[in-house]
Amino acid sequence: MINVGIIGASGYTGAELARLLCNHPEVKITVATSRQYEGRPLAEIFPNLRSRLNIRCENLPPEQLQERADLFFTAVPHKTAMNIVPELLSAGKKVIDLSADFRIRDQQIYEKWYQPHTSGHLLQEAVYGLPELYGKSIKTTSLVANPGCYPTSIILGLAPLLEAGAIQPRTIIADSKSGATGAGRSAQVGSLFCEVHDGFKPYKVGRSHRHTPEIEQELSLLAEEEITISFTPHLLPLSRGILSTVYASLNPGFEQTRIEELYKQKYTSQPFIRLLQEDSFPATQYVRGSNFCDIGFKIDTATNRIIVMTAIDNVVKGAAGQAIQNMNLMCGFKETTGLEIIPLFP
Amino acid sequence: MINVGIIGASGYTGAELARLLCNHPEVKITVATSRQYEGRPLAEIFPNLRSRLNIRCENLPPEQLQERADLFFTAVPHKTAMNIVPELLSAGKKVIDLSADFRIRDQQIYEKWYQPHTSGHLLQEAVYGLPELYGKSIKTTSLVANPGCYPTSIILGLAPLLEAGAIQPRTIIADSKSGATGAGRSAQVGSLFCEVHDGFKPYKVGRSHRHTPEIEQELSLLAEEEITISFTPHLLPLSRGILSTVYASLNPGFEQTRIEELYKQKYTSQPFIRLLQEDSFPATQYVRGSNFCDIGFKIDTATNRIIVMTAIDNVVKGAAGQAIQNMNLMCGFKETTGLEIIPLFP
Amino acid sequence: MINVGIIGASGYTGAELARLLCNHPEVKITVATSRQYEGRPLAEIFPNLRSRLNIRCENLPPEQLQERADLFFTAVPHKTAMNIVPELLSAGKKVIDLSADFRIRDQQIYEKWYQPHTSGHLLQEAVYGLPELYGKSIKTTSLVANPGCYPTSIILGLAPLLEAGAIQPRTIIADSKSGATGAGRSAQVGSLFCEVHDGFKPYKVGRSHRHTPEIEQELSLLAEEEITISFTPHLLPLSRGILSTVYASLNPGFEQTRIEELYKQKYTSQPFIRLLQEDSFPATQYVRGSNFCDIGFKIDTATNRIIVMTAIDNVVKGAAGQAIQNMNLMCGFKETTGLEIIPLFP
Amino acid sequence: MINVGIIGASGYTGAELARLLCNHPEVKITVATSRQYEGRPLAEIFPNLRSRLNIRCENLPPEQLQERADLFFTAVPHKTAMNIVPELLSAGKKVIDLSADFRIRDQQIYEKWYQPHTSGHLLQEAVYGLPELYGKSIKTTSLVANPGCYPTSIILGLAPLLEAGAIQPRTIIADSKSGATGAGRSAQVGSLFCEVHDGFKPYKVGRSHRHTPEIEQELSLLAEEEITISFTPHLLPLSRGILSTVYASLNPGFEQTRIEELYKQKYTSQPFIRLLQEDSFPATQYVRGSNFCDIGFKIDTATNRIIVMTAIDNVVKGAAGQAIQNMNLMCGFKETTGLEIIPLFP
Repeated sequence: MINVGIIGASGYTGAELARLLCNHPEVKITVATSRQYEGRPLAEIFPNLRSRLNIRCENLPPEQLQERADLFFTAVPHKTAMNIVPELLSAGKKVIDLSADFRIRDQQIYEKWYQPHTSGHLLQEAVYGLPELYGKSIKTTSLVANPGCYPTSIILGLAPLLEAGAIQPRTIIADSKSGATGAGRSAQVGSLFCEVHDGFKPYKVGRSHRHTPEIEQELSLLAEEEITISFTPHLLPLSRGILSTVYASLNPGFEQTRIEELYKQKYTSQPFIRLLQEDSFPATQYVRGSNFCDIGFKIDTATNRIIVMTAIDNVVKGAAGQAIQNMNLMCGFKETTGLEIIPLFP
Repeated sequence: MINVGIIGASGYTGAELARLLCNHPEVKITVATSRQYEGRPLAEIFPNLRSRLNIRCENLPPEQLQERADLFFTAVPHKTAMNIVPELLSAGKKVIDLSADFRIRDQQIYEKWYQPHTSGHLLQEAVYGLPELYGKSIKTTSLVANPGCYPTSIILGLAPLLEAGAIQPRTIIADSKSGATGAGRSAQVGSLFCEVHDGFKPYKVGRSHRHTPEIEQELSLLAEEEITISFTPHLLPLSRGILSTVYASLNPGFEQTRIEELYKQKYTSQPFIRLLQEDSFPATQYVRGSNFCDIGFKIDTATNRIIVMTAIDNVVKGAAGQAIQNMNLMCGFKETTGLEIIPLFP
Repeated sequence: MINVGIIGASGYTGAELARLLCNHPEVKITVATSRQYEGRPLAEIFPNLRSRLNIRCENLPPEQLQERADLFFTAVPHKTAMNIVPELLSAGKKVIDLSADFRIRDQQIYEKWYQPHTSGHLLQEAVYGLPELYGKSIKTTSLVANPGCYPTSIILGLAPLLEAGAIQPRTIIADSKSGATGAGRSAQVGSLFCEVHDGFKPYKVGRSHRHTPEIEQELSLLAEEEITISFTPHLLPLSRGILSTVYASLNPGFEQTRIEELYKQKYTSQPFIRLLQEDSFPATQYVRGSNFCDIGFKIDTATNRIIVMTAIDNVVKGAAGQAIQNMNLMCGFKETTGLEIIPLFP
Repeated sequence: MINVGIIGASGYTGAELARLLCNHPEVKITVATSRQYEGRPLAEIFPNLRSRLNIRCENLPPEQLQERADLFFTAVPHKTAMNIVPELLSAGKKVIDLSADFRIRDQQIYEKWYQPHTSGHLLQEAVYGLPELYGKSIKTTSLVANPGCYPTSIILGLAPLLEAGAIQPRTIIADSKSGATGAGRSAQVGSLFCEVHDGFKPYKVGRSHRHTPEIEQELSLLAEEEITISFTPHLLPLSRGILSTVYASLNPGFEQTRIEELYKQKYTSQPFIRLLQEDSFPATQYVRGSNFCDIGFKIDTATNRIIVMTAIDNVVKGAAGQAIQNMNLMCGFKETTGLEIIPLFP
């Protein structure tokens, strides 16, 4: 049993960490922070937690925080995270950072897309927290950079293909669609019910979304060459879920059976990857609330393209659930502990 | 560990039983039936179950069914249930019937609202499966009539008031709103996405919904007098959730503190009832996917009325979850086993 | 052809006025104001207006405003309206105020529910803009107080019954459900997509919603006696639509045919009231985008109650459409001009 | 003033034709057919039409039909259409067919994707009813093959680029997302509210959707070379709207200004095309209920790709509205008559 803290508990990711950690048999939430809601019970802000979590939001400086738990989830915006994480690490704590601050290994690239980095020395130390790819390193690190939601959905879909050289990296196009939790819980006109409901739209089209360098970094590592992709995010009128439809041209010699084999080799032992049968495609409603990533693909011989489709719950496998999966690995718990949730359908 | 069977696994209630039972540590699903999907894996029909439940739908006559499990959930339409249940009971099996067939104690009333009853002798034997009211009887029965979804939401809201004589029974008006799972999974134009989405409507207004006699039966027992109510169901553009807004005139001497006390006395030890604080009201999104019933009330002194509001997930506390709660009591398991689910929000 | 101005064009009501007035053959929008979006094209804020309305938001003091149009719609929050309206009237302009500032005839009641009134002298002058009741007065006034959305749905449903003495005023209970446009376009956490979507909840229960005195004022006038009602608003997960389910006890002698006759006498010549046949009930999706108010009722003889159900689009008949209907009357246009919109379904 | 008939009035497209034609000043609906709802008022099936359309569904053979109107909209499934259309044409009537039966010019291709064609001689005679491309031919034909919804959204987006040789035809990938009206009004489990709501999924991935040959035929004509594309449809949890995100590699010499110019040249005089400014992207909610096609694009210099995004209301510009636009041209009415609808937002 370890004590865990949630830094930034009043966002959707923080609330989801609370929901999932409440039912985790190996941990106790000992501190939850929120500047905005200081002093208020977290279950008052997120009434789904009523009667199950009895903790009040606190507003503490890092030096007081560090004594309150063994492991911390930092679910705060980027830039805020880089100011908190180093002190927690210095105090010997484990940290899983859900912001973007430690995901990009190249400080220059980080600073081009975000802002100056004040803890650049940690960029090489942090492990990119995609357990299906980096499980071994995650087990021994103190700092996990929890992946972005879009990157999780795209990287998991392409990893077996890129490692095997099955596709032409320059042809990758990722058309992704996300639910509104991805925009967070801040009060903005663009996130109002009436603006999002019964509608659908692309946004940040053409290399302008900040997940682009993160996706390219990881795909490049898998392919062992520099990859530039097209990535178009869209906003779905639903709360949870990302579906990515990814297109790429196949290299010669890779047909249905061989591709199936690649996915099986990579993922059969992975508890949260569900490979779909031929002509079965993923859907966000079948992963809702769970840590699963469903993957299906279709080969279009007329155009020699493969279409890979993945579905995740962006709040779970794309954020809080994956963070807990990382915690399980870092702490020597069973990887699936607290995450054995069956998707809620309908 | 007991073996359980789901009769009628391809409806939303059947699928929800499967979802919940998969994570129940004391049971194993040994048989699931469906005429329509005979031979097909249940996880193919409900892909949320993929990788977690490996069972195929069967189409078996009662005599073959009875050997396959120790306890059965009959999640079939009324009339179908009354033909299956007696044989299962005769074979010494426990049965939790989720249809309406054993909910009405008076055979004449049943036949007025439904059709002739072929197993009328069981009507007195069956226990109405509302654990918060009939927990003791449920523990010793072999046949539970699992309550309807609307009745659950209304009866739980009014029970403390009626038992204490706090309200005038003739003034009760229940205005209830339900998600679309309540209409089931049969292919009907009225249940199509485009007919329900972005809309809201009443239906079966004015004593025409079949839950009316069930509600009146139970409220009358609580009040120890014959009660006739107004009950208006409405269809919400969401899948899960019932919110009932119930109005009644207060009897003299019942004010805020005393009413609060009545609810606390009745429900404090009940694990699935959450009593809300004054000026906090329930919402379907805060119980989604869980077995909770959230209850709030407001006294309007200008009209001398109390407004009681309750929220449940109709598929869980209004059907499958309550059925498992009943199973837990019937089998001597802890009442909350397998049901410790925190609502999924957002 | 007259020139009209929209004061407060950047809210949902302002945008809807723009949408409807664009297709009105007798008017030209000559000015639209917004402090927040000063200088920006209105069609940039509401892209549905692209290519159809070419006007920029301005931020003008009343003295400059008054020269810019013949008739003004004030779609600003209450309190703001009372500071603008008197000057416009003094300049000889016609005004349709969509705020609450001129709806309550008794200044004391207004000030109890809102705040001190700085133009109390206009309260008696303003005509309550429900054309089906006050059409004659509207034709000759310069100041219309456009009704609230909930009041419109409730008053239209009850008017024929109260005028005929068909129901007992003290038994009226109005259970109303509204779409999220009712909360306006201001950035608030409670109005975010993820908070409203896939959920349903009551709010301001028990005489705390500010539409209560407005409803009671009008119902009392109709009944010619002081009426106190129960009114419970709820928030629906859709943008447009109010459905009110209203309960009342019938007085002796009023049965189906006679009630039908009352509605027909009152409304047959009203172009925007659609009376439904017996056992047909209104639904928000069948009035979406239109100025219709659909009315149905059901008599429950067992409880001697009538259940009246009305559906409107709260942004149209509950706000902008009704305002234009009022303008048509004030300006001598045909009452239906610009409002002959058929509801958008599905 | 002409008389028009709607063959197949009880589907969503039929109902939308009724909605739009009711407000068209040059036509009168004189007959509406439906086998399923024979004898019932159309406004009973689609209550949005109440008080505006007073017509009953009939079930008539073609020989009786032909006398009842001057122009017919055939909104029936493919295969049914080819049996009705020839007789109507022989009787000298104008026909706008909304099925797929006359869209494919090559009978072999039609028969490969659909079934044997019994009126193959009409394939060359029919004009593909995309007014922005074929306006002149539409004016003089008696038979218009009204385009599919997906094809409309994709072809309008690519036409200026293909005509100018701006993109490499073999690189075209169309990722399209449609609302649920696209699946029609037949009672199928997959179209139920609970299956579609709060979810998102691809379907018919990889050259299996029947709109593929239609899209390729038209793109090939525009490019004057054989084009094979990737086209992936997805199902959105909303009723109306298609958004297509289309990717293609640019040929040398085509940059922002030149591309803008191409779109302007092609579409400036087209009343239903709205070209968006740079960095403004289309959204389904801004075209809802209207006949507009909004088009935006973004050039990604890093990958040398252009991303073209288009949004239409699939029931209007993708079906009934476009059909009426075609009727206007065929009958010499102003192209926009009856279609000057501003999108309904929110």
